[in-house]
Amino acid sequence: MHPFRQFILQYVHLPTKDWEKIASRLEKRVFEKGTLLLREGEICNNIYFLEAGFLRYFISKDGREVSKFFTQPPYCFTSQRSFNQRIPANENIEALEESQVWLLKRTDAIELFELKSWNEFVRKLVQEVQFFTEQILEDIQNNTAEIRYQRMLQAGSPLVQKVPLKHLASYLGIAPQSLSRIRKNLSSPSN
Amino acid sequence: MHPFRQFILQYVHLPTKDWEKIASRLEKRVFEKGTLLLREGEICNNIYFLEAGFLRYFISKDGREVSKFFTQPPYCFTSQRSFNQRIPANENIEALEESQVWLLKRTDAIELFELKSWNEFVRKLVQEVQFFTEQILEDIQNNTAEIRYQRMLQAGSPLVQKVPLKHLASYLGIAPQSLSRIRKNLSSPSN
Repeated sequence: MHPFRQFILQYVHLPTKDWEKIASRLEKRVFEKGTLLLREGEICNNIYFLEAGFLRYFISKDGREVSKFFTQPPYCFTSQRSFNQRIPANENIEALEESQVWLLKRTDAIELFELKSWNEFVRKLVQEVQFFTEQILEDIQNNTAEIRYQRMLQAGSPLVQKVPLKHLASYLGIAPQSLSRIRKNLSSPSN
Repeated sequence: MHPFRQFILQYVHLPTKDWEKIASRLEKRVFEKGTLLLREGEICNNIYFLEAGFLRYFISKDGREVSKFFTQPPYCFTSQRSFNQRIPANENIEALEESQVWLLKRTDAIELFELKSWNEFVRKLVQEVQFFTEQILEDIQNNTAEIRYQRMLQAGSPLVQKVPLKHLASYLGIAPQSLSRIRKNLSSPSN
């Protein structure tokens, strides 16, 4: 079964004829490690399904990169605000590993809203993304970078292994040196 | 025109017969200042439209209240995760002023998904809430509490006037004393 079909089925009932309409509009793309799938200032005209790979969302701030989110497969992604309002994106999306994605053009995605299944799928997905964003926000409002890093470790988050230290530090809102120190303290014999 | 109808019309085309179906399910409620519309641990079985008043979302953490969001009219609100997954809410919703709301039961809200207009409205609304949450998150990741407070001042945010200092401080992630100091510095003659 197509991985995107499998993914949609986790959220909604998907009649075969609906899936065929969706599938006929999908285009496969492969992005090499280090490539930008979207650059700040561009309008994001697509919604994507990440089949394999690993992505980083970041913004540029005073000449440095601040990491916002990381996306692991299987999941959908776009630059929501840019996609919905057709305005330049305020973020970049980078492939941290070679990434295989399925692309759906904005015009096609909108046409597909005629399908009840697609409409429901998108609504549920956006709600889920909203939960995730709210959780990150709550976590930042309530916990120090050190506690947040410790929790990622305890939860066995793949981010700890996969994300380069400098990106993980900016995601946690601290300097790379501070994260190194936290790592060192946590791995010292007294812990 | 009913304020909720007016609100929906900002997002989607709303045929009269669709509005009538929605309107027939709405119930008016008034909450006195200081009342909790939702308590942590309860399941939120309603979606609400805030016609007048002012709300605060907060969680309890180590015996103190941490403010997450504030909602001003006209806007819709619920405890999304609790509402969608039928699990106990991890947050409280408090009326900071006397608040007039229109309530729609979960079962009714779900039945209304048969209407294309309602489906589209909810999707767009959730997307908008997602934008707002992402903006707050980005703001916290990138700026100090002082800069965030200064920006609220510059933008003429009603939060500065309406929200008690202790709630605003916890929203900014700082102690009330620190916010008092920031306020004092900003109002000193050298600024």
